[in-house]
Amino acid sequence: MCELLGMSANVPTDILFSFTGLMQRGGRTGPHSDGWGIGFYEGRGLRLFQDPTASADSEVARLVQRYPIKSKVVIGHIRQANAGPVSLANTHPFSRELWGRYWCFAHNGQLRDFHAEAGFYRPVGETDSEAAFCELLNRVRQAFPAPVDVTLLLPTLVAACAEYRGKGVFNCLLSDGDWLFSFCTTKLAQITRRAPFGPARLKDADVTVDFQAETSPDDVVTVLATEPLTDNERWIAHEPGDWTLWRRGECIASGKA
Amino acid sequence: MCELLGMSANVPTDILFSFTGLMQRGGRTGPHSDGWGIGFYEGRGLRLFQDPTASADSEVARLVQRYPIKSKVVIGHIRQANAGPVSLANTHPFSRELWGRYWCFAHNGQLRDFHAEAGFYRPVGETDSEAAFCELLNRVRQAFPAPVDVTLLLPTLVAACAEYRGKGVFNCLLSDGDWLFSFCTTKLAQITRRAPFGPARLKDADVTVDFQAETSPDDVVTVLATEPLTDNERWIAHEPGDWTLWRRGECIASGKA
Repeated sequence: MCELLGMSANVPTDILFSFTGLMQRGGRTGPHSDGWGIGFYEGRGLRLFQDPTASADSEVARLVQRYPIKSKVVIGHIRQANAGPVSLANTHPFSRELWGRYWCFAHNGQLRDFHAEAGFYRPVGETDSEAAFCELLNRVRQAFPAPVDVTLLLPTLVAACAEYRGKGVFNCLLSDGDWLFSFCTTKLAQITRRAPFGPARLKDADVTVDFQAETSPDDVVTVLATEPLTDNERWIAHEPGDWTLWRRGECIASGKA
Repeated sequence: MCELLGMSANVPTDILFSFTGLMQRGGRTGPHSDGWGIGFYEGRGLRLFQDPTASADSEVARLVQRYPIKSKVVIGHIRQANAGPVSLANTHPFSRELWGRYWCFAHNGQLRDFHAEAGFYRPVGETDSEAAFCELLNRVRQAFPAPVDVTLLLPTLVAACAEYRGKGVFNCLLSDGDWLFSFCTTKLAQITRRAPFGPARLKDADVTVDFQAETSPDDVVTVLATEPLTDNERWIAHEPGDWTLWRRGECIASGKA
């Protein structure tokens, strides 16, 4: 199993605090030592850092931790390999351009016998995850050759995820840089932080941050993670089949498949 | 104008020496202060570092300089903006997946009134360069829906580049991680280093490297750059219309359009 990290915020926000907690699970407090990756959107651009080595030992991870990148949407992932060898091409998150935007995707779980239909988007590596991402994008493109609002797209996204769920475990995060979509089949949790902000303490490292000192009163920041990252806040657990859609930190749609 | 850097090698090779020279031109010894980027292939994976700030001042550039990534194919670029504002989405190199491989592209020059046909690949940012890259990939995909060897692809690549040349300056580097293609309309230079290796001295920084100590006798490493990066070696200048194709450090095809 792998671990996911997602963020949606209404102002460019740095994810260093959550990232620090997640990275500990990559070989130190957790077993996910087969690579990690994180994608930060900056405007329409996507900045992707990935490493096929354990995040707790990764030079690139230390670089990211020293360098506070502010973003409204972030997708991160640490990997414990099950399908596909450990390599950069098999490291989440994956990205493709669709409709003139970079889409970014990370998956936690495993799909049995997943054979994607041949389509426009093709996997570069060997993971079931990247194959599912390409399959999903091929469906979206086939259903909607021209860009549509994400709300019109939702039924296609949810139907695809529900189908993949029939083949195994499919917790995922997906974004085009504007919205952030999640699907849960086993494990996912969320927290939305807004004024009045308080202190938060990481479960996996001896780090506490006082969000009051780091935020403005109008900030709204939602974090999604496979497991709660802090132990003094109330996280909401997703149930199997739950999907959510976020924009600027707020949930704009949700449901159960 | 911008500056290009490309490498093709028969063994994973670090580009730190050349990168160090190039980065100086991003705001220190050169005027290219509107961003920089570099893509390293690792197997089929592509590691992309980009920053819309001057490379000489870039924290990410310093990280890359401290962290010797070894690769057989590299494409780098420093930018002096002419078309499109300074942003991550407008920062070279650009990447797209085609035929299950990540293609990477960087452009030096400017195209007047470049309007890409609407196609499958669409630009995310506002540069003429990314629009031309998408146009080129759309042509390749239209001509060859299924993967073909690059030698069969060459006439399509060369014809497209020759056409873009009619709209302005189009020096470019393109790769799928296996081969490296270049096209020159004004300025590009190449050097192939092989045994016996000697010392090389950067033009833009007080740095000398003894490649003899850093290489094995069978290594073959070709570097392409807008301007020669060293002042004690013999670089070969490309003429307008010259194109070259490299694999594992060796030129496998070349011609003039």
